[in-house]
Amino acid sequence: MVEISGCMSSELSIPIKKLIGFFTVLPGIGPKTAERLVFHLMKQKDSFLDDFSHALLEVKEKTASCKRCFSFAELNAQQICSICLDTKRDSFVLCVMSETTDLLALEKTGEYEGKYHVLGGTINTLRGIYPESLTIADFLKRVKEEKVREVILALNPDATGEATSLYLWDKLKDCNVRVSRLGLGLPMGADVKYADALTLSNALKGRRSL
Amino acid sequence: MVEISGCMSSELSIPIKKLIGFFTVLPGIGPKTAERLVFHLMKQKDSFLDDFSHALLEVKEKTASCKRCFSFAELNAQQICSICLDTKRDSFVLCVMSETTDLLALEKTGEYEGKYHVLGGTINTLRGIYPESLTIADFLKRVKEEKVREVILALNPDATGEATSLYLWDKLKDCNVRVSRLGLGLPMGADVKYADALTLSNALKGRRSL
Repeated sequence: MVEISGCMSSELSIPIKKLIGFFTVLPGIGPKTAERLVFHLMKQKDSFLDDFSHALLEVKEKTASCKRCFSFAELNAQQICSICLDTKRDSFVLCVMSETTDLLALEKTGEYEGKYHVLGGTINTLRGIYPESLTIADFLKRVKEEKVREVILALNPDATGEATSLYLWDKLKDCNVRVSRLGLGLPMGADVKYADALTLSNALKGRRSL
Repeated sequence: MVEISGCMSSELSIPIKKLIGFFTVLPGIGPKTAERLVFHLMKQKDSFLDDFSHALLEVKEKTASCKRCFSFAELNAQQICSICLDTKRDSFVLCVMSETTDLLALEKTGEYEGKYHVLGGTINTLRGIYPESLTIADFLKRVKEEKVREVILALNPDATGEATSLYLWDKLKDCNVRVSRLGLGLPMGADVKYADALTLSNALKGRRSL
């Protein structure tokens, strides 16, 4: 059961308060926004809430994390996602991502032909996320069993992403695989004069000939 | 059925795409945010989606708009909300609001002792919202039938709110009721030097002796 925030209006009915509670669990949605969303929902056609409710159940029933790469995907008999099953993709190259959403962003580029491994987060000891909380053991097992030749570490360039990359890099030392990470530097459309020193320093280190 | 946005990743499973579609219908939630919310939901415990789904159905079953004031409230046998049924409140004073959320904001002040009437929006002919689309006829009927002595127009001080206030004011001319509107001026915590000219002009007009 979701806790009902104390700052909610006492005039609200219990079912409305309850639904607001569920929305406040979502990232970036505070009690005020949740209230606005719920009142917007109540102005929709009757069938809309039925369908929304059904979609929430269906996403749970029909979607699961892939048993091989751990990305969220439509459930099939083997419980292996379509990317892992795709024989046209290079299974000797593994790209390590934090979340399924990161994977989707890379897929959108259409430039990557290898397979993936989703860790389910990054190591963050302050928040109680240790290597054992992630799918790191499964990843290292895959590297050995699937005779992976190249690993691309595609974690966010922030404190926990860097820590996780270093941890994995250390673990992969004796595995005889090429390990690389995504290039760092200026994003497209950036303005050099507004770039922070670290980004600019990375752009300088990662300079390439035209 | 909710339309599925074309910019969604083709790698997403159908049930995920469908649920994202429902979230994008909500105000202020674009496809990117919806994707993030859905992936956050999928990381919750199994029972969470069940309960969320149930709450969506329940809010529809147990909540309805009050037959008298048209605010959303918990359904009871009479289909009249607890504020309208409250005999301790002054039923000769009616505060006209655009939405139930406006009503809740005023209730939070604890300063208002009268009753309410929710219009369900404001007149906006450009968007096809005419007086007939709102509960204005019901409101005027109430003013006469319930022998209302005072009407407080508490609509937003924007173009459509002002237009609606003027429309109602005109309609109430011959009803022998005192008509007022919420005071306009500086909000608490405002800085005079950053206030816009219209707000400052209203604050000057509405000045009160200490």
